[in-house]
Amino acid sequence: MRYSPLITDLYELTMLAGYVDEGMADTPAVFDLFFRHNPFNGGYAIFAGLAPALSYLENLSFTSEELSYLNSLGLFKATFLEYLEEFRFRGKVTAVPEGTAVFGNEPLLTVEGTLAEAQFVETALLNIINFQTLVATKAARICHAAGNGTVIEFGLRRAQGPDGGLSAARAAAVGGIRSTSNVLAGMIHKLPVKGTHAHSWIMAFPDELTAFRKYAEVFPDSTILLVDTYDTLKSGIPNAITVAGELAERGHRLVGIRLDSGDLAYLSKEARRMFDAAGFPEVRIVASNELDEFVIDSIRDEGGRVDIYGVGTRLVTCDGDGGGALGGVYKLVRSGDRPRLKVTSDTAKATLPDRKRLLRALAPDGSFIQDVITLDSESIVPGDTVFDPANPLQYKTIPVTAQLIDLRDVVMSDGKAVLGPSDNLNVLADRTADQLQKLPQGTLRFMNPHRYKISISKGLLDLRQQLVKAIQEGSTHG
Amino acid sequence: MRYSPLITDLYELTMLAGYVDEGMADTPAVFDLFFRHNPFNGGYAIFAGLAPALSYLENLSFTSEELSYLNSLGLFKATFLEYLEEFRFRGKVTAVPEGTAVFGNEPLLTVEGTLAEAQFVETALLNIINFQTLVATKAARICHAAGNGTVIEFGLRRAQGPDGGLSAARAAAVGGIRSTSNVLAGMIHKLPVKGTHAHSWIMAFPDELTAFRKYAEVFPDSTILLVDTYDTLKSGIPNAITVAGELAERGHRLVGIRLDSGDLAYLSKEARRMFDAAGFPEVRIVASNELDEFVIDSIRDEGGRVDIYGVGTRLVTCDGDGGGALGGVYKLVRSGDRPRLKVTSDTAKATLPDRKRLLRALAPDGSFIQDVITLDSESIVPGDTVFDPANPLQYKTIPVTAQLIDLRDVVMSDGKAVLGPSDNLNVLADRTADQLQKLPQGTLRFMNPHRYKISISKGLLDLRQQLVKAIQEGSTHG
Repeated sequence: MRYSPLITDLYELTMLAGYVDEGMADTPAVFDLFFRHNPFNGGYAIFAGLAPALSYLENLSFTSEELSYLNSLGLFKATFLEYLEEFRFRGKVTAVPEGTAVFGNEPLLTVEGTLAEAQFVETALLNIINFQTLVATKAARICHAAGNGTVIEFGLRRAQGPDGGLSAARAAAVGGIRSTSNVLAGMIHKLPVKGTHAHSWIMAFPDELTAFRKYAEVFPDSTILLVDTYDTLKSGIPNAITVAGELAERGHRLVGIRLDSGDLAYLSKEARRMFDAAGFPEVRIVASNELDEFVIDSIRDEGGRVDIYGVGTRLVTCDGDGGGALGGVYKLVRSGDRPRLKVTSDTAKATLPDRKRLLRALAPDGSFIQDVITLDSESIVPGDTVFDPANPLQYKTIPVTAQLIDLRDVVMSDGKAVLGPSDNLNVLADRTADQLQKLPQGTLRFMNPHRYKISISKGLLDLRQQLVKAIQEGSTHG
Repeated sequence: MRYSPLITDLYELTMLAGYVDEGMADTPAVFDLFFRHNPFNGGYAIFAGLAPALSYLENLSFTSEELSYLNSLGLFKATFLEYLEEFRFRGKVTAVPEGTAVFGNEPLLTVEGTLAEAQFVETALLNIINFQTLVATKAARICHAAGNGTVIEFGLRRAQGPDGGLSAARAAAVGGIRSTSNVLAGMIHKLPVKGTHAHSWIMAFPDELTAFRKYAEVFPDSTILLVDTYDTLKSGIPNAITVAGELAERGHRLVGIRLDSGDLAYLSKEARRMFDAAGFPEVRIVASNELDEFVIDSIRDEGGRVDIYGVGTRLVTCDGDGGGALGGVYKLVRSGDRPRLKVTSDTAKATLPDRKRLLRALAPDGSFIQDVITLDSESIVPGDTVFDPANPLQYKTIPVTAQLIDLRDVVMSDGKAVLGPSDNLNVLADRTADQLQKLPQGTLRFMNPHRYKISISKGLLDLRQQLVKAIQEGSTHG
């Protein structure tokens, strides 16, 4: 799939024209992509969207149709349009792997290149990574709630446009939801596709039992019957049991039933009891209808017997605190030979300047202790003191028994993707599952989660304080 | 843009295979698309997405790559894949025009055709129309809040994938937000594109004044300066006033400034005062930063002097009650020669069966009194009694002075779009604006809006009651 370079805000193009005009286009620049707060008021996020982002960068170029459209705007000089004709992304990208647990203020992805190329890609990178990371995070939360239950992505009809559904299915897989009802996502992202049937199937036949029988005739080995069209307990389940018996006589098996309304905890317990009593303990119970991590939690709390959760709307639109968007930003941290930062009225919230490294301290058993952000040039070892970025008076010592690993890899060099970052969604989902096991378990809680500790090094702290001071002393004169 | 026919839930394909197997594929069927509750707990919705939906239907066909993918699933017979090779949509579509104010339970779009084609298109139609209608509605609410202020769509970086941003820009335009920062949306949907510059532009120069001057040099007639990088009132606005003076000396004009943080009501009043005092009353004030209808309302309540609102995240992700999704559904209302309905435990919420008409009663001045849903075959005139669908004991008389108009047109016949439904977004935005003027004004209120009255005819009420009774008397034997 080609991403148009016009998937961008107009200001990226006007700024680019400005840099070209000012002879600044080739100034070396470094930008960090990060978010400030974990989504859903949660304890972590799952990074996703890297493979599509790299594909965008690697193939970035303007078609003649796109250039003539830009020309028609009357905003740009002919020399600039000629410049765009040759424009490519030839920079370097450093990023955490998809499926990594990440946190607010961490540099997830860093772009180094010319000011022109590194600035221009802002909007597209944010668009791709914000949404994929948000959905992967929601998916990880939902899988955590489901425990040993299976989760399927069912959200296409409520997704934000066709591609909203497609991107959501990919990101949900990174987060651990490894199958989908979305057939195009199945083809493009090599995900298993799953489904049952709709109420309209039942309504197209004279009665429910006939409808069930006919579906089972066509798909004798993959039938899941939707049992709530008329009355779940009095009609749907008894009819499904009849069909399960008829399938068994012919050497087949009813795979399951789907509950799509009502009290899913109660109905799943009743359904389980009825199928067990009828001699069909292997028939699986699928539940759908506005599910999310909170509803699944409560179904399990009440002893519900759901085997498979079909999760749609609230996954693909990322319902919940955070309003369907991850507030990822992309900030200049170095240009020319100078580190840069953006201050706000609260200087403790100033961005982290310059090229950096993102380290994770691991306990001897591999579990995660804390993350540390350092200057690229700095060397940090266990035993060193590190600081709270929002409150430098709070400091902490990295345990001497810890191992420090670099969380990020160079994933693109001179505009070419470096072999390594995988787009195999099963590998990425496995990584997510592994990361969630190694996080402090309180971090996974939905309400008031444990706050995983992120610190900055002495070198980074000092540099930030020095730059803030310089700005405060002469903001308009730099 | 081609929509793949695989933009669908797997069950649409398995049901289709079932209908083909059972010899039911050619049974005549009628489906209604509707939502149950107005989004955002609001008083109305703005219908959108028809032109893309018709384009999907008109071009529906499977490529050989798509068919071989389906074959690889091992679910379908060779004869069914051959059937799909010839599969097209050849049905009839009746719908309200885009930009029409619509309400819960109204049949917005009706598909008539064979059971095969009419069922298959469910997921894609819901995907396209749910999201477009949701965004158009949010946009209409935001424009209403902005009064005479201009609104620009700024949401691409937080949109749900690249196409989420593109569809959102189109739908926002239907709702009244007629320009966008999204350059691809500008090209594809012929929308004016707008923009300013980012904080990084400022940070790439030694100081703010130099950065402002350089931008104004490159774009002397279209410069809007972002004034909050260091300190809005002490640095940003004074520097912008200096540049406004320098531009004026050279015969140009500073177009505006943008406020992107802080107390936008207060800062806009201060900015207005400072620019007016400096002799620049024509400089416009743009505000952005997590705006929605509620924030804009409060800025205006406090006497804010914002001229242009840049609205991003909360528009394109449709933040607010409703969780980023319109709960549109697609229900079988007739198959073969029988009207159908779906009952739930609350029979007053049964769907409305059979082919229908959607009428609007207009007062002599053209304002909207109420909507009435009737059977297709029924003739309704002013003076007739009509009923509350959820409570048939409540009835109402259509005023004898009212004029009854049919809200829907046949927009597709034999699978070909009928000339008429416009994809000119300015025409659609004009229609939205006109509709909002004609609605009872209490309907536009954000909190506890007036509930616009939707009634059903005697014929429709009687048919529904008769079908509910038949199901209750023999649900499993129909």
